[in-house]
Amino acid sequence: MKILVINPNISDSVSALIQAEAQRSASPGTEIEVATAPFGVAYIETRFEALVGGYATACLAAERYGSYDGVVVAAFGDPGLQGIKELIDVPAVGLTESSLMTAATLGQRFSIIAISPRIKAWYRETVERSHLASRLASIRALDEPLRDIGSVQQDYSERLKVLCNQVVDDDGADVIIIAGAPLAGLAREIRDELPVPIVDGVASAITQLEGLIRLAPKKASKGSFTQPPVKPNRGLPEPLERLLGRELSGGR
Amino acid sequence: MKILVINPNISDSVSALIQAEAQRSASPGTEIEVATAPFGVAYIETRFEALVGGYATACLAAERYGSYDGVVVAAFGDPGLQGIKELIDVPAVGLTESSLMTAATLGQRFSIIAISPRIKAWYRETVERSHLASRLASIRALDEPLRDIGSVQQDYSERLKVLCNQVVDDDGADVIIIAGAPLAGLAREIRDELPVPIVDGVASAITQLEGLIRLAPKKASKGSFTQPPVKPNRGLPEPLERLLGRELSGGR
Amino acid sequence: MKILVINPNISDSVSALIQAEAQRSASPGTEIEVATAPFGVAYIETRFEALVGGYATACLAAERYGSYDGVVVAAFGDPGLQGIKELIDVPAVGLTESSLMTAATLGQRFSIIAISPRIKAWYRETVERSHLASRLASIRALDEPLRDIGSVQQDYSERLKVLCNQVVDDDGADVIIIAGAPLAGLAREIRDELPVPIVDGVASAITQLEGLIRLAPKKASKGSFTQPPVKPNRGLPEPLERLLGRELSGGR
Amino acid sequence: MKILVINPNISDSVSALIQAEAQRSASPGTEIEVATAPFGVAYIETRFEALVGGYATACLAAERYGSYDGVVVAAFGDPGLQGIKELIDVPAVGLTESSLMTAATLGQRFSIIAISPRIKAWYRETVERSHLASRLASIRALDEPLRDIGSVQQDYSERLKVLCNQVVDDDGADVIIIAGAPLAGLAREIRDELPVPIVDGVASAITQLEGLIRLAPKKASKGSFTQPPVKPNRGLPEPLERLLGRELSGGR
Amino acid sequence: MKILVINPNISDSVSALIQAEAQRSASPGTEIEVATAPFGVAYIETRFEALVGGYATACLAAERYGSYDGVVVAAFGDPGLQGIKELIDVPAVGLTESSLMTAATLGQRFSIIAISPRIKAWYRETVERSHLASRLASIRALDEPLRDIGSVQQDYSERLKVLCNQVVDDDGADVIIIAGAPLAGLAREIRDELPVPIVDGVASAITQLEGLIRLAPKKASKGSFTQPPVKPNRGLPEPLERLLGRELSGGR
Amino acid sequence: MKILVINPNISDSVSALIQAEAQRSASPGTEIEVATAPFGVAYIETRFEALVGGYATACLAAERYGSYDGVVVAAFGDPGLQGIKELIDVPAVGLTESSLMTAATLGQRFSIIAISPRIKAWYRETVERSHLASRLASIRALDEPLRDIGSVQQDYSERLKVLCNQVVDDDGADVIIIAGAPLAGLAREIRDELPVPIVDGVASAITQLEGLIRLAPKKASKGSFTQPPVKPNRGLPEPLERLLGRELSGGR
Repeated sequence: MKILVINPNISDSVSALIQAEAQRSASPGTEIEVATAPFGVAYIETRFEALVGGYATACLAAERYGSYDGVVVAAFGDPGLQGIKELIDVPAVGLTESSLMTAATLGQRFSIIAISPRIKAWYRETVERSHLASRLASIRALDEPLRDIGSVQQDYSERLKVLCNQVVDDDGADVIIIAGAPLAGLAREIRDELPVPIVDGVASAITQLEGLIRLAPKKASKGSFTQPPVKPNRGLPEPLERLLGRELSGGR
Repeated sequence: MKILVINPNISDSVSALIQAEAQRSASPGTEIEVATAPFGVAYIETRFEALVGGYATACLAAERYGSYDGVVVAAFGDPGLQGIKELIDVPAVGLTESSLMTAATLGQRFSIIAISPRIKAWYRETVERSHLASRLASIRALDEPLRDIGSVQQDYSERLKVLCNQVVDDDGADVIIIAGAPLAGLAREIRDELPVPIVDGVASAITQLEGLIRLAPKKASKGSFTQPPVKPNRGLPEPLERLLGRELSGGR
Repeated sequence: MKILVINPNISDSVSALIQAEAQRSASPGTEIEVATAPFGVAYIETRFEALVGGYATACLAAERYGSYDGVVVAAFGDPGLQGIKELIDVPAVGLTESSLMTAATLGQRFSIIAISPRIKAWYRETVERSHLASRLASIRALDEPLRDIGSVQQDYSERLKVLCNQVVDDDGADVIIIAGAPLAGLAREIRDELPVPIVDGVASAITQLEGLIRLAPKKASKGSFTQPPVKPNRGLPEPLERLLGRELSGGR
Repeated sequence: MKILVINPNISDSVSALIQAEAQRSASPGTEIEVATAPFGVAYIETRFEALVGGYATACLAAERYGSYDGVVVAAFGDPGLQGIKELIDVPAVGLTESSLMTAATLGQRFSIIAISPRIKAWYRETVERSHLASRLASIRALDEPLRDIGSVQQDYSERLKVLCNQVVDDDGADVIIIAGAPLAGLAREIRDELPVPIVDGVASAITQLEGLIRLAPKKASKGSFTQPPVKPNRGLPEPLERLLGRELSGGR
Repeated sequence: MKILVINPNISDSVSALIQAEAQRSASPGTEIEVATAPFGVAYIETRFEALVGGYATACLAAERYGSYDGVVVAAFGDPGLQGIKELIDVPAVGLTESSLMTAATLGQRFSIIAISPRIKAWYRETVERSHLASRLASIRALDEPLRDIGSVQQDYSERLKVLCNQVVDDDGADVIIIAGAPLAGLAREIRDELPVPIVDGVASAITQLEGLIRLAPKKASKGSFTQPPVKPNRGLPEPLERLLGRELSGGR
Repeated sequence: MKILVINPNISDSVSALIQAEAQRSASPGTEIEVATAPFGVAYIETRFEALVGGYATACLAAERYGSYDGVVVAAFGDPGLQGIKELIDVPAVGLTESSLMTAATLGQRFSIIAISPRIKAWYRETVERSHLASRLASIRALDEPLRDIGSVQQDYSERLKVLCNQVVDDDGADVIIIAGAPLAGLAREIRDELPVPIVDGVASAITQLEGLIRLAPKKASKGSFTQPPVKPNRGLPEPLERLLGRELSGGR
């Protein structure tokens, strides 16, 4: 099977982190392709940036439609994910949705570790969209300006471990979610030093998407996840226009 | 004061309906400018279409930044609204947010009348984002293919009145929200025939935005509605890039 | 248009604060009349006091019925508001309801600054009644006995600013609501010193009520906000008895 | 022990029903005194009427303070109850609160049977105040004008039984609450004909209040149920003024 | 009337505490019988231990069926309670359910004082099952290993009082629930030293069960609390098999 | 990897259905072992039966501890699951939890199709425990006595398809969950005839458990999913006693 992993941001260094963890997490026989957003910002922290990233992600998913068996939206906050689920006929997952589902299976309450204070509101609203906010113990974040988005893990590893211990000791988390693609792979590094299960968004997403692809769920032909109705449109990138304008004919 | 009303869709006929109701609702001395999305679909019914419409709306809000004292996102579902609130430093409102706030002041429970069954899921999720879903009595919708998005009011006026009566009699609504820009102005036409207050999105939005502009709230310099942090970006329309790249210096 | 602003408490000094901020907030052409409760307590902090104030407010609203185009219940907690909405056929708003709606438009989460610890439970329950408690970041309050209810703003201005900053920095508020009629007008004074938008109950209420009066919503003839059914009553003040005993014939 | 049962309405015929069921439910040695509101309406169906009834009830509770060991607010909807709990230093219960607590012990979901459609909104909001609305299966009500508030049980007994069966069969109720003082005693009559436990407000209230009086909970000297703070007041009935103006010195 | 009080744990010392408080709380004429679980653990702190204790409690309730008029499940967390309510045809209550209902009548928000940090998650989930979690101000617990489960009250009385004051002063509790059978009777000892009402699980349960037995609710013959359907079973203790295998014929 | 699938009920015919679907769903290289509860009832429909099934399941999980890499609790309602997660140090999943997580990834709202009306309350409470009840569109069930628990799929296939279509057309489900082990495998049969994705509990559980085992989450040493504290116990089956009495040393 082939999985398209879309980085909704323009940072190649983050794409490299995503790619590495995706490869480490994939089953033998799974092919991983990582695509980086052609437009947008370096990393998403706000609702506005998510709007841009969501549109860029949808454009990429449409552009490469037909070449993959499933899509990962590889930014915490899942920009564009629900829209993309409508658009295509193979499974799509996001880092937040996958992390929440994995965490919900490993414990009752979970906390999120994030890379900046600004990002917390956007993350909380993402969790609310899944209706799991009442199981969210806390969100804690690094609180200094990031030196380099590609080396957050190295630059702040000690501080990140402190935050992880705080959410367990002070906030009552049963599970820790390490949020955000810039931290992809960190969970694997520090898991033995922490007292509870720790969830990596990329690893969760790849694992769950492989499972979904094997379950092969049918594309909805009724309800709110069918393809958007055919109707007049204007000024859209050609791949989007093509996908919107005709019946889907299935995956790769 | 000058208000920019953005139609997130490409339908000029709907822009005309919006313009007419906005003018009727505005105070003397308020200047209304309506802008139509340069790209997108004819009318938004789904999460994917909202993603496109939200991005188009943000592009327009950035392009005309400096020429207005406030913005109305003139599609029910408020595509892009929360992001736009971060982006600019003058008030922004949406048809859903305004309608819900007006309705919440007029009664305890409200229902939404919509133009298609498909749109109901997207509307419900929009109401959930405002945390007012527990006051939503119901959403009822026209259930046949629309003949022409610009003449929905004329084509289905009887059916729409039936739906309005049903939400009062069967669902317990204290207030009716007529949802969606294609129905702009209808509330004014049929209000005397209905047994409860009826809220028009465009009229609510204009009225509330005028009030907000007079209250002149300060742009946040802390918290989740400050401008997105300055950071590398790529491939964005020039007005967006400009707004993201420097300190805001205030409205018109 | 003429607005009746009812102070549900007996404090003339607070009525003066309300009057001043109402005048500052009103549009040209809006006439403001402030009425002070003829019976009750100096300021409402508890459920019991709200019960008294609510009844006093309803009596005043009935007594002056026919002389106004809309009513403001000018105490945070909105004593009697929902009942008054049933009773009369022109719009009625309260400081809490108006503040919450304004705040909900300006941000996602808001905090309330209050004048005493005792008042916090009553305020929280008022927010719960609006179903917006999940967007309430915190309520913080002055914690010393008030020297004089008419000079709270002057006596505690520094402490109030400290509380305002705490709700932003520690509690995650996007918007600050300055609660309670004794603080009417304070927001206007300190807004430039604070990092997020700040909402004044009186200013919000006047602004929103002006908007509602212009929207001219129909009085419900069905549902839970119609006039209470005609039925035997006894011992009521004559204006209440009169309003309960016959069909409403419209506003001023 | 002596229990004061206050009918918040002016209907002597309903007071007689309340008295009869209270006597039937009381333990040997419990003295029941029923007081009828000196002002108000025939029966409460709306928020406005509850405002009047709540104030009347508080006045009565203050007037007879010192003569009882506990108070029952004997109207569904519990007008004034939370305020009265602050005011006095012996236990106070209401028909709704007692019924909900009894029902919550007998099953997971419950329905309410009411005497008029108008009353449903007020009842739902009362249940919301207790935070138990998510366990409310439904509210069903008689839907014709009442012939005589004192003979509802006789006049509509067959219809009431039909409603009871509907909430079990169609709405999933585990328990039925017969709501409203005009129906006091009905549960006792029809319980053998119904398939689930059936809760009478008056019987629940008397039983629970007897239990509370035996548990002898301390009057709060901190928190939101302490006596309202001593402060200036004006124009209150003398017993209220007396209770508000000094330290409480305990029950009978 | 005769009440069977089941200690779901194997600790005879705790059974003695339960017995003493149950006797102190019971009305004259109520006979109390305490039974100790024949298998299980010393005291329940976790979901797994509750599973064992719930099964042991159900076995005891079945074994002695016919000899009692009501059952108390005498561990906080109410292991097995909802299942036992299905199984038998006389009232059953638990310490948590009873405490919550009593506390909900005495105030709006309550806190729980517990004997170990580990127990907090299990308690919170129990409160969630009752749908009253939004009224839970906090759970605070002793945080050192217990010297002896039978002497917790003596060993930690000062610390427990500190916790009680903290939930009032810092967490906003109107009422304190002293949780867990090992603390049975403590409320009675310290109530005069605390500023708000304090609820004892055993005292609440006995008092409420006496009330329920007097109300004599009918066993459900429809809905989710009827007896489990007759169907094949295997390997069950004979009393359980007997109860499951035939129609219930009523209490003692 | 080796997965132990525990049927919490005594029905060998249902175990056979579970075994078949588990085998069909498993990856190459996954070994499936199905164990049937040695005591209990034919199939779980009620809280009481779940109590028995949960204990039986825990006994089996303990008895075979060391021989598996993960456990599936193979009854909808997940009897005993949360306790078992505490007890063992390898992943455990249940049919409900797995189905909900899969469904939540495939759509926003889901419905459950069940085998009897009685089972609906128990299922709803299970969904509430996951905090996803607000995404539950409906539960619909067969409403006639089952001819044979092992042949429900054959006996009622047409009726089950009707229910599936109703939850999409009338209740707004985006996804259908076929609930209960007796229906294991049915989703695979009828998926092409239905308009939305359809989730099978057994297939979901196997797929998700395989993923979890590959992610290899650490056993919690802090928080509410650590092993229950070592403490006195009595009368437990030897494998339980052994697991409770010592430090866990890891999986197979």
